[in-house]
Amino acid sequence: GLGLGLWRWQQAAMAASQEDEDEGEEEALRQRFMAPPVSGLRELRRRRRELRSRMELLIMETQAEVCRALAALDPGAAFAVDTWERKEGGGGISCVLQDGEVFEKAGVNVSVVFGLLSEEAARQMRSRGKALKAKDGKLPFCAMGVSSVIHPKNPHVPTMHFNYRYFEIEEADGTKQWWFGGGTDLTPTYLNEEDAVHFHKTLKEACDKHDLKLYPKYKKWCDDYFYIKHRGERRGIGGIFFDDVDSPSKEEVFQFVKSCAKAVVPCYVPIVKKHCHDSFTPEEKLWQQLRRGRYVEFNLVYDRGTKFGLLTPGSRIESILMSLPLTARWEYMHTPPESSKEAEILEVLRNPKDWVH
Amino acid sequence: GLGLGLWRWQQAAMAASQEDEDEGEEEALRQRFMAPPVSGLRELRRRRRELRSRMELLIMETQAEVCRALAALDPGAAFAVDTWERKEGGGGISCVLQDGEVFEKAGVNVSVVFGLLSEEAARQMRSRGKALKAKDGKLPFCAMGVSSVIHPKNPHVPTMHFNYRYFEIEEADGTKQWWFGGGTDLTPTYLNEEDAVHFHKTLKEACDKHDLKLYPKYKKWCDDYFYIKHRGERRGIGGIFFDDVDSPSKEEVFQFVKSCAKAVVPCYVPIVKKHCHDSFTPEEKLWQQLRRGRYVEFNLVYDRGTKFGLLTPGSRIESILMSLPLTARWEYMHTPPESSKEAEILEVLRNPKDWVH
Repeated sequence: GLGLGLWRWQQAAMAASQEDEDEGEEEALRQRFMAPPVSGLRELRRRRRELRSRMELLIMETQAEVCRALAALDPGAAFAVDTWERKEGGGGISCVLQDGEVFEKAGVNVSVVFGLLSEEAARQMRSRGKALKAKDGKLPFCAMGVSSVIHPKNPHVPTMHFNYRYFEIEEADGTKQWWFGGGTDLTPTYLNEEDAVHFHKTLKEACDKHDLKLYPKYKKWCDDYFYIKHRGERRGIGGIFFDDVDSPSKEEVFQFVKSCAKAVVPCYVPIVKKHCHDSFTPEEKLWQQLRRGRYVEFNLVYDRGTKFGLLTPGSRIESILMSLPLTARWEYMHTPPESSKEAEILEVLRNPKDWVH
Repeated sequence: GLGLGLWRWQQAAMAASQEDEDEGEEEALRQRFMAPPVSGLRELRRRRRELRSRMELLIMETQAEVCRALAALDPGAAFAVDTWERKEGGGGISCVLQDGEVFEKAGVNVSVVFGLLSEEAARQMRSRGKALKAKDGKLPFCAMGVSSVIHPKNPHVPTMHFNYRYFEIEEADGTKQWWFGGGTDLTPTYLNEEDAVHFHKTLKEACDKHDLKLYPKYKKWCDDYFYIKHRGERRGIGGIFFDDVDSPSKEEVFQFVKSCAKAVVPCYVPIVKKHCHDSFTPEEKLWQQLRRGRYVEFNLVYDRGTKFGLLTPGSRIESILMSLPLTARWEYMHTPPESSKEAEILEVLRNPKDWVH
């Protein structure tokens, strides 16, 4: 059972008012998205030139694109769509496919939240920890993003994560601070070099359209960020990661983020298709479960987004912890034999490689 | 495979020097423990009146007592004994039984570490965060303890955790700060009131011998400490927990800690015996796995000992994360039906009860 809040877009679409002049366009968007956008289609159209509106449409579109592409790979299963509201302002749409044939747990979450932040909370939100001048100690803010973790069943299909987000904070004098963050990264149970190259190459192409410096910089940032310090291992074979990006211009960063979001399906779906019918042994499944344990360790101990979410009053815990795998395993002192396939991936997790030049 | 460092006490006992006058007594201790104490038997006898020596013997004894009692319940399985050294000073003995008939994962760990602490690290070690005066910014310290988590297979047998520890820090003027911490607590998958009462009653009796105020105070501390804030749930049905205790006197606190340590086997073993052959359904096993997921959440997000351990250079990760279950599960939006057995335990985790008066 999915509990309260389960919400099917079709129903809302039928019930929605039809009195708008641009009915045709709205209807098209409605059918494209998994649920109505948090800000409402009319409001989004009213302020359609503002970046936060364009970003909200982009994250809605990305959610729908990814869900449709994944659902097509797992015909027996369907995404359950959950909409939720945040008491303090805003809300979100969580799409989850659980216990399918291909996917053990696939979640694609959109959230659009706004309200007032304390100076301290605002400072923590920003990775560079820049100080912001507040009026009466409170800062109006808006944060939105799409985030997703896909855990497949077959140990030869890697786990994939992506997240693209946008923040706005208004200072006392009315100036708006804004920045983007995001990334896409891959966590295989076993190393497949061809897949690693395809994944990184697709991301590099998305970056290169904007600036040749971006891929190398954000590839390294990804390796540094997804580091499980107490294990001396990265969570996976990386991808790209960036945070607190506010240059060269709002429009240019948005276009870059858009290219990255559009690259999610082409960088991951071919890998799923290629391996989702691969045969595997119980030993391979067990190794996958141990790697899932490491995934849990990273997300609960180090991930800034998860930690920030768990500490934020009014945040939706089920959407934050959607990133955890359906099942995980911890064995005391497990060490794979030398020269095994398990040792091969560990080596890459300890010493990240360059996959494209 | 248990990797390097596996060490069987029998071998060392044979190799040990026999030139000591109190050979008989040492031989008796040797046979009683799982491995030679970190400080060495001879050194412990030389300074046998010092509290840290008596505490080291107590934690060694507790480890052996608990391992023997558990091994007797799971005849097909055996504890693997691992000794390890800490480069910076000290070491430990980890005893782990994995994938037995009765226990999924049972670990009993002793560690005795010493060296120099920075003023900041020393302050963090102490829950009250008292300032300490260091010579040249460094404080000689000694920390020792026994800690254990027992995860059984049968969902009708609860998980049990205990930890008893002692710290000493020497200030610049030679004065020694010391304190004890510890506790024993139970995490059932399903509520069994009789078991809950037995567990708490046994702990209360251990406390009451020393001071009638201790049980109520440490029972509440336990409920407050093992709180998974983002879920609004306790990890389990509690027990006792205390930290940073340095009164009424070193001797009296030691005697209290000794009573608690001696209570571990009588408070838990009868519950295991009673239920380890209970039949259970796949649904009950699934609910156990979801509760194991919550156990992981508490330990990785909130537990001070785990967090402190993961951040301490030179700490032994495998011994710290021994507390994690062999397997765990996270389902999106899982909510047990009203009036179910699953809802019954959740109610108690949300609103802790008094089990003995």
